[in-house]
Amino acid sequence: MKLFGYFRSSAAYRVRIALNLKGIEAEHAFVHLRKGEQAAPDYDALNPQHLVPTLVDGGTVLTQSMAIIEYLDETRPEPPLLPSDPAGRARVRSVAQAIACDLHPLDNLRVLKYLTGPMGVTEEKRDEWYRHWIAVGLGAVERMLTPAAGTGRFCHGDAPGLADVCLVPQVFNAERFGCDLSAYPTVMRIAATCRELPAFAAAAPERQPDAE
Amino acid sequence: MKLFGYFRSSAAYRVRIALNLKGIEAEHAFVHLRKGEQAAPDYDALNPQHLVPTLVDGGTVLTQSMAIIEYLDETRPEPPLLPSDPAGRARVRSVAQAIACDLHPLDNLRVLKYLTGPMGVTEEKRDEWYRHWIAVGLGAVERMLTPAAGTGRFCHGDAPGLADVCLVPQVFNAERFGCDLSAYPTVMRIAATCRELPAFAAAAPERQPDAE
Repeated sequence: MKLFGYFRSSAAYRVRIALNLKGIEAEHAFVHLRKGEQAAPDYDALNPQHLVPTLVDGGTVLTQSMAIIEYLDETRPEPPLLPSDPAGRARVRSVAQAIACDLHPLDNLRVLKYLTGPMGVTEEKRDEWYRHWIAVGLGAVERMLTPAAGTGRFCHGDAPGLADVCLVPQVFNAERFGCDLSAYPTVMRIAATCRELPAFAAAAPERQPDAE
Repeated sequence: MKLFGYFRSSAAYRVRIALNLKGIEAEHAFVHLRKGEQAAPDYDALNPQHLVPTLVDGGTVLTQSMAIIEYLDETRPEPPLLPSDPAGRARVRSVAQAIACDLHPLDNLRVLKYLTGPMGVTEEKRDEWYRHWIAVGLGAVERMLTPAAGTGRFCHGDAPGLADVCLVPQVFNAERFGCDLSAYPTVMRIAATCRELPAFAAAAPERQPDAE
């Protein structure tokens, strides 16, 4: 199995955590997003979206972090990253998607660059944009997690799963931009619990070979 | 089962299609997004993200359109909206997520309002933003769909599924904003095929009781 990623990409970070939780040893390849390597012909053939991650499993090329993680969970079921009951699975997916659909896409590199580039927005306004969507997004996630019967040591119960896999990279990203996260105590408590686990710690951006 | 939606919301539109494909009769409730009804206390208690849709199935409250559709597929398996093989499921989810994670969130109502409001962007620049992410997003989806062995009459094979359920509302949305979609012939061919099906036609925004 071969993962194409970038140390700072939240989406690649999610898949690194999932691989570690499953105990899967993957070969790692690095696509330098700031240098534009995602548009190189070789990578374009794998991922026409020019995004990371891409996972190659034998002859199967997989894109989109959440689709990849669901694939890993279906083909390597232990330990599970989704609960077994449909309502629990829906809850975990909804927290994951509140981050992966409604928060992360607004604050990722290509969007921030488009704001200060073609949109002519100042860096100050761009940073205001960043913080706004963090506040909207993590504020909503905090309220999805508490009070909520399903929440335990992790986003759902007492084992890490898909929601935690999405939560930790988003918290990392927000911290890197210097956001005040004190209004999200449950988010931060769960992120801290996750980060103590070797699977999360080893996936951290600063631990990757391509880290700068 | 009760669906809280808004006629023009792409995410609610997806769930309407899925319910129709499954032949599920749901009660419909309407949350007027432009009037701010998503922040009313009753709705806030169901959906702390203040987004539509929300689906209530007995005592279970479900949010996030893709989590809801996966739940429907798990609890009412016929007809399936995902293929049975993991690689096929990953492919369908990746196309759905290319729309639901990387395209739709950038062009939805709250983001467009934030651009012209706090960000101080002109309406002309906002429309340029809208068209830019349609071109990036549908351009990538077009290339994910063709050439690709999995693509058939629909995004994956010859039956409609999760990817088609996401594709049609995005095409509707782009058409409403007057985007030129001639560069995406496979996308448009599949959208046209879908729209001939009663399940898709009955879910169209203009057919909803709250349409304006």
